[in-house]
Amino acid sequence: MEAPGHYAGLLRLGRETIAVTTDTVGTKVLLAEQLGRWEEVGEDVVGVNVNDLAAVGARPAGLVDVILCRRPDPTTFAAIGRGLARGLRAADCWLLGGETAVVPSIVRGTDLGGTAVGFFPGRRRPITGRRLRSGDLLIGLPSHGFHANGLTLVRRLLARGRIDLDRPRPGSRGPLGREILRPTRIYCRPIEAIADDPRVHGLAHLSGGGVRNLVRLRADLRFSLTDWPEVPGLFDWIQSLGRIAPKEMFQTFNMGVGFVVAVAPSGRRDLMAALAGAGARDAVPIGTVTAGRGVDLPALGLRYDGYG
Amino acid sequence: MEAPGHYAGLLRLGRETIAVTTDTVGTKVLLAEQLGRWEEVGEDVVGVNVNDLAAVGARPAGLVDVILCRRPDPTTFAAIGRGLARGLRAADCWLLGGETAVVPSIVRGTDLGGTAVGFFPGRRRPITGRRLRSGDLLIGLPSHGFHANGLTLVRRLLARGRIDLDRPRPGSRGPLGREILRPTRIYCRPIEAIADDPRVHGLAHLSGGGVRNLVRLRADLRFSLTDWPEVPGLFDWIQSLGRIAPKEMFQTFNMGVGFVVAVAPSGRRDLMAALAGAGARDAVPIGTVTAGRGVDLPALGLRYDGYG
Repeated sequence: MEAPGHYAGLLRLGRETIAVTTDTVGTKVLLAEQLGRWEEVGEDVVGVNVNDLAAVGARPAGLVDVILCRRPDPTTFAAIGRGLARGLRAADCWLLGGETAVVPSIVRGTDLGGTAVGFFPGRRRPITGRRLRSGDLLIGLPSHGFHANGLTLVRRLLARGRIDLDRPRPGSRGPLGREILRPTRIYCRPIEAIADDPRVHGLAHLSGGGVRNLVRLRADLRFSLTDWPEVPGLFDWIQSLGRIAPKEMFQTFNMGVGFVVAVAPSGRRDLMAALAGAGARDAVPIGTVTAGRGVDLPALGLRYDGYG
Repeated sequence: MEAPGHYAGLLRLGRETIAVTTDTVGTKVLLAEQLGRWEEVGEDVVGVNVNDLAAVGARPAGLVDVILCRRPDPTTFAAIGRGLARGLRAADCWLLGGETAVVPSIVRGTDLGGTAVGFFPGRRRPITGRRLRSGDLLIGLPSHGFHANGLTLVRRLLARGRIDLDRPRPGSRGPLGREILRPTRIYCRPIEAIADDPRVHGLAHLSGGGVRNLVRLRADLRFSLTDWPEVPGLFDWIQSLGRIAPKEMFQTFNMGVGFVVAVAPSGRRDLMAALAGAGARDAVPIGTVTAGRGVDLPALGLRYDGYG
């Protein structure tokens, strides 16, 4: 009784196909708790889910949220609600309902997750990477920091280094805690602007697993990231803080690119323009699809064969 | 950005309406952990969600499960998977995907939940209770024990009484632990058998909140439960164990009836036959809808005005 999965589960319902994703914000809630700021992770509940819908070309329709907590705290709930509302507006998505359970015997702190449902308007079909071929161009959409991935490692390094979250890191302004909490960028509008174009051959949300997420599109082609943009300072800083190997960085964090669009080379100009017109003026070519397997970053001598 | 809710969120997607529910098995996981038995609560993940779909007349289509745990345990995961599979078969529903997160910093034990999506085949419309009227007959579908509600209270009483879960309670056979773990009865097939009949005026899943769930159908009518069937021994036993007032029992547990169907009196014979033909031969009339408000059980002198 298992339906084919990709980023999202796909299901035929009467005359429509729907996509369903489920995800939590993971251990980012622990940072939210430490800082007493819940709005950002509320917004993340939307981002982590709707970006997975975007990764199959689905338009978000509705979301349900799930909050598990130790004790009811109206201030926290209100902040999460504001974040959810902001994310839902950015994703053009409805709140369908939710579940808030006060279960001190199950959770230590708070767990925050959700499930989103999307659909394929008009004649659109799910975009699964089936159309990908050698020569396709990879376009990267920049991220807003860590999003909701790699936070277990980040928190460990922050604790070990006794880093003050109220002060900026070197080279930045504003408290580090706020920079790390920054919500997941929501890519739905730019993806919606191109999802009906047949020159779009594949879509990938770079969440947990970093650049290895590209392998989910097709295991029998290589994703050659020849033009990875300058890595944002936040990632460089955490890398030196933990003396982390580049290979681990690119398989743990989004490293500045949160979403990748693979397009036929002929579509480059039009699709870049469409992305720009829908809020992703910062989209940049980051590489190409070639014969082979896995993901490589030749400038850094990195190579990933898969998730292994 | 909030869609109208009832038991399930309803959403128009292209040419179809879908229903979405999200729920966890709550603290029943703690009993599963104590007994080292996970198959039953795996099946409950399906039951708690698809019965809420049935309560709006939706046919279940897909489910995603979410497991949060302290450490990965293949034996536990396999047992949960077997339970999920059994529930999905009983509900004629697909597993669309899931999320398993090992988050020892967030959970003390295991949290088990899911989200289900349903649809309205053919010309079926959601059944919300709008068609209910005074004189309608209430038909009850028996439960299989506590399902996944009231377990916090049950566990407290078991601990306080130092009750041995490996032995039967008085008047029963088989270990008490197994009796309490028995999975939520899945009502989808009988409800599917009647959901296209216009004489079905309302549907209610008696989960957390007990008989008060009926008020969710309509606040401006009274649900007079004049013929509540004999309460199963398990409920009587827990009631005496905790010296619990009848009013608390009926607002906490399903008390033997897990689902209620409100029908036009003219539909009684046909609909009872249809329910019986789809696996609910044990359905029984339990009362009527009358003028007034709230829920009453006149034989017990109980009255509920709402959830308050």
